[in-house]
Amino acid sequence: MDHNELIDKITNEVMSRIKNNMTAKDALTKSGVSDSKLGISTQELARYIDHTLLKPNAVDTQFDQLCDEAIKYNFYSVCVNSSWVSYVAKKVRGTDVKVCSVIGFPLGESDSRTKAFETRNAIENGANEIDMVICVSALKSGNLKYVEEDIRAVKRACRSTTVLKVILETYLLTESEKVTACEICKKVGVDFVKTSTGFGGGGATIEDIELMRRTVGPEMGVKASGGIRDYNSAIAMIKAGATRIGAGAGVAIVTGKKSEGGY
Amino acid sequence: MDHNELIDKITNEVMSRIKNNMTAKDALTKSGVSDSKLGISTQELARYIDHTLLKPNAVDTQFDQLCDEAIKYNFYSVCVNSSWVSYVAKKVRGTDVKVCSVIGFPLGESDSRTKAFETRNAIENGANEIDMVICVSALKSGNLKYVEEDIRAVKRACRSTTVLKVILETYLLTESEKVTACEICKKVGVDFVKTSTGFGGGGATIEDIELMRRTVGPEMGVKASGGIRDYNSAIAMIKAGATRIGAGAGVAIVTGKKSEGGY
Repeated sequence: MDHNELIDKITNEVMSRIKNNMTAKDALTKSGVSDSKLGISTQELARYIDHTLLKPNAVDTQFDQLCDEAIKYNFYSVCVNSSWVSYVAKKVRGTDVKVCSVIGFPLGESDSRTKAFETRNAIENGANEIDMVICVSALKSGNLKYVEEDIRAVKRACRSTTVLKVILETYLLTESEKVTACEICKKVGVDFVKTSTGFGGGGATIEDIELMRRTVGPEMGVKASGGIRDYNSAIAMIKAGATRIGAGAGVAIVTGKKSEGGY
Repeated sequence: MDHNELIDKITNEVMSRIKNNMTAKDALTKSGVSDSKLGISTQELARYIDHTLLKPNAVDTQFDQLCDEAIKYNFYSVCVNSSWVSYVAKKVRGTDVKVCSVIGFPLGESDSRTKAFETRNAIENGANEIDMVICVSALKSGNLKYVEEDIRAVKRACRSTTVLKVILETYLLTESEKVTACEICKKVGVDFVKTSTGFGGGGATIEDIELMRRTVGPEMGVKASGGIRDYNSAIAMIKAGATRIGAGAGVAIVTGKKSEGGY
């Protein structure tokens, strides 16, 4: 990539983030609720949040803190990479906090058998929920059979006991590809569609949450993730149709204060 | 991440890329060889190159082109995610071009059993070489036993027949962590240490290649990857001690012309 391409990429990224942020605020304003009258208490909001730590250079003490915070604020789950599942499962045992493992993360480009194996292993190690990444390259190549079978392989590993969310990585997809992916997820019978990994590009947008909700209907879960860093953005996502929020900024979202965890 | 953090991150990224680029050129100048007298022909240089396509939104026709180019220019291998191994293995069958699969890519944060499973599966599907990502979080947590066992699990899956390269993701590591990682790799008896995934941050630097070569000694392989986009940079890495180059820009490296593949 030469400097011009790099500058373009950075500019697009910055503009996209600014736009996402404005969109969240706009939607909030449009929905006619003021900051003080959003209709969802912070206690209720906490139960929407998968408290998330996925960066590869995180250390054990940050996972300790993640679990402590999840217990303290009563977040729905802690969401980690599969190498940390058994560690966090021990920490939150005996509490209401569930364990969520990402699978094939963040590219979604590990083969289907590996995704299924990683899922079984994560469940054995204590995961209650699975957030897999769709095979974007297969979707973009028009190989919808592969996309479906890839999700089915993980769904089989989840059986009926483990919640399955499918990450679409919306920033890489066209509108039509987002719809197709949602339809495949609905057909396979997964529990949630989810917007983003939070790696490599854009995060959740109001438009994407609305589109996903419209496509999957009222029954399925929709998880907004990537770039949600405060109470207003989280509420805007919920108003748009999200039933779960993935964020490293859970503490900031429910308290307005930044976590010292730095995730 | 707030705007200041974002600006910092972009600035650091840009500065790091500028610095890497200058470092490669400086090293070349210091080594006293001019562009026209580098001592390695482009035909020889091609045999250093793992022709690489790892982005999640790549499509089948790009993998076709990757394989065609690898055969045409006689690159050492094509390097892909594990979901594409069987596809490219069919394409390059009967040629000198080998198949390289990345494992636990790019975070290195899938659990060890999954990395081993993904490796066995990739080999079954036609991979001749395996590029696994180290568990950076375990290294940074001081859990060196986990780091070693994680590599050993993949090494066992490779047996003595499949080449194993270990990606350190140097941009996330301190100097001391880079040395420790190299020493563990040497102890386990892997074939190569490799600098970078090319995702999420900095790539290969001359300093890192020199450090890695010094630490592993003259016998092991050292693979430079991430940000190598032209002949001079590739040659500078080889002069610094690299015995393999990972790049999406293989065609540009050996011809000076940009590939139409766009990887």
